[in-house]
Amino acid sequence: MNSTNPTPYLHNVKYYETDKMKITHHSNYIRWMEEARIAWLEAIGFGYDKLEASGVISPVISVNCQYLRSTTFNDNIAITARLVKYTGVKFTIEYEMVNLSDNQVCAIGVTQHCFTNEAGRPISIKKNHPDLNAVFNDFIAALS
Amino acid sequence: MNSTNPTPYLHNVKYYETDKMKITHHSNYIRWMEEARIAWLEAIGFGYDKLEASGVISPVISVNCQYLRSTTFNDNIAITARLVKYTGVKFTIEYEMVNLSDNQVCAIGVTQHCFTNEAGRPISIKKNHPDLNAVFNDFIAALS
Amino acid sequence: MNSTNPTPYLHNVKYYETDKMKITHHSNYIRWMEEARIAWLEAIGFGYDKLEASGVISPVISVNCQYLRSTTFNDNIAITARLVKYTGVKFTIEYEMVNLSDNQVCAIGVTQHCFTNEAGRPISIKKNHPDLNAVFNDFIAALS
Amino acid sequence: MNSTNPTPYLHNVKYYETDKMKITHHSNYIRWMEEARIAWLEAIGFGYDKLEASGVISPVISVNCQYLRSTTFNDNIAITARLVKYTGVKFTIEYEMVNLSDNQVCAIGVTQHCFTNEAGRPISIKKNHPDLNAVFNDFIAALS
Repeated sequence: MNSTNPTPYLHNVKYYETDKMKITHHSNYIRWMEEARIAWLEAIGFGYDKLEASGVISPVISVNCQYLRSTTFNDNIAITARLVKYTGVKFTIEYEMVNLSDNQVCAIGVTQHCFTNEAGRPISIKKNHPDLNAVFNDFIAALS
Repeated sequence: MNSTNPTPYLHNVKYYETDKMKITHHSNYIRWMEEARIAWLEAIGFGYDKLEASGVISPVISVNCQYLRSTTFNDNIAITARLVKYTGVKFTIEYEMVNLSDNQVCAIGVTQHCFTNEAGRPISIKKNHPDLNAVFNDFIAALS
Repeated sequence: MNSTNPTPYLHNVKYYETDKMKITHHSNYIRWMEEARIAWLEAIGFGYDKLEASGVISPVISVNCQYLRSTTFNDNIAITARLVKYTGVKFTIEYEMVNLSDNQVCAIGVTQHCFTNEAGRPISIKKNHPDLNAVFNDFIAALS
Repeated sequence: MNSTNPTPYLHNVKYYETDKMKITHHSNYIRWMEEARIAWLEAIGFGYDKLEASGVISPVISVNCQYLRSTTFNDNIAITARLVKYTGVKFTIEYEMVNLSDNQVCAIGVTQHCFTNEAGRPISIKKNHPDLNAVFNDFIAALS
């Protein structure tokens, strides 16, 4: 795995994701970022279902999305998720979404996350998941 | 409360519920039936959040919806939910949805349900929830 | 293409498709049937985007779904869509959904459709789309 | 109408808006902001259905949401939408979402918009909708 060139996650735009403007409703891009994030976590060995089974959940602290070009039904969107910041407790992922029908970037996004236990209390990834901490640090080191 | 003339539940069609046909996507009517069912349960004193807090969940066994006239953004839909069958274990609810913009029935539906504990095991409403059992029986008696 | 053994459409259950019962919300199966139907139409040469570009839309007349076993996040669902009835104007598709995590049928469904022009007026497939009419008739003939 | 103290829009959290974390899925807040924005436009005399009927659509340029406290099924969320910036072409709306079950702010958000014709070409609100331009300018003037 080349940590700086992750394989993009592919999303085919569904009919029910469009709205009466005949384009994809903007709320769906937030969901696609989640899909890409989950696929990336699975690809690096930390599938979200396994994380949850270990009593950890990862709530979203913030989302940001900039819509550059509209997309619509049956477009294929290639989404690259990239870890760009990690503090041992919080992490930040950036997304680039390319519409394969014209190879143009249609949207970019950023999400921030922490880890909590099932009671909703933030936990330190560094202390509680040293294996994930090491992988996250490798990705951050590869950025520079 | 007149058990044979329940107050309809009102749903205002949201922009994100439309699709590129410029009408409401058909999957949303299934969600509106759930909204109307939950409002009806709350109206008869068995709010769904309280039911779940008591360790009971109510999965859907089947849904049926017939789409008679399309609806679209900002239409107000009056949904009447009516208990039509109850066996002590399973119950059936029928729905009539009227679009208030033309006072025509836009859809009718039917859902079937049971109650289970949190492990997913079916439980008898009659045995475990005699109060709800009594109310359900009153509704069924009022049908004839 | 073997018309009696269509390739199943695969859907991976998304996190946002689950609800607080920790299972897939029942409304999503209605959407998956649409995904499988659209994939099947594309596979037989009548992609839905092309149909719409030709001024034809295909509203849903009715849906039915029976939920046999719950599914949840990250399950892979293999959905077989099969044309079972065609009158020249209306058609009916049946669906079987198999959860690949246990190879059990989790749900079965039926949808009914017609074709309309963009003004919402029903049109005869037989008259207006003889090519699609022929393919639909082949599928029906293969049933017996 | 007091332009600096708009009436909050109320959203009751639906069962299907929760996810397996037992809280509201974060993508729904993006939809609630749209609901509040549409209600606000209607309250100031520019209902979105009428805007669209006049050939104008208002795509979202960007969204931002910060999640401060989780919400869940049946919570009532009071959402205040406030125009905070307007250039004659683009406008920015800020949102504050208060969970009425504890009267705490659960999320804050920002969206940016422009107006386009149906072909997707940006149009000047100032030139094409002088009435809306005047109302928007009144709101901005009231901020200082």
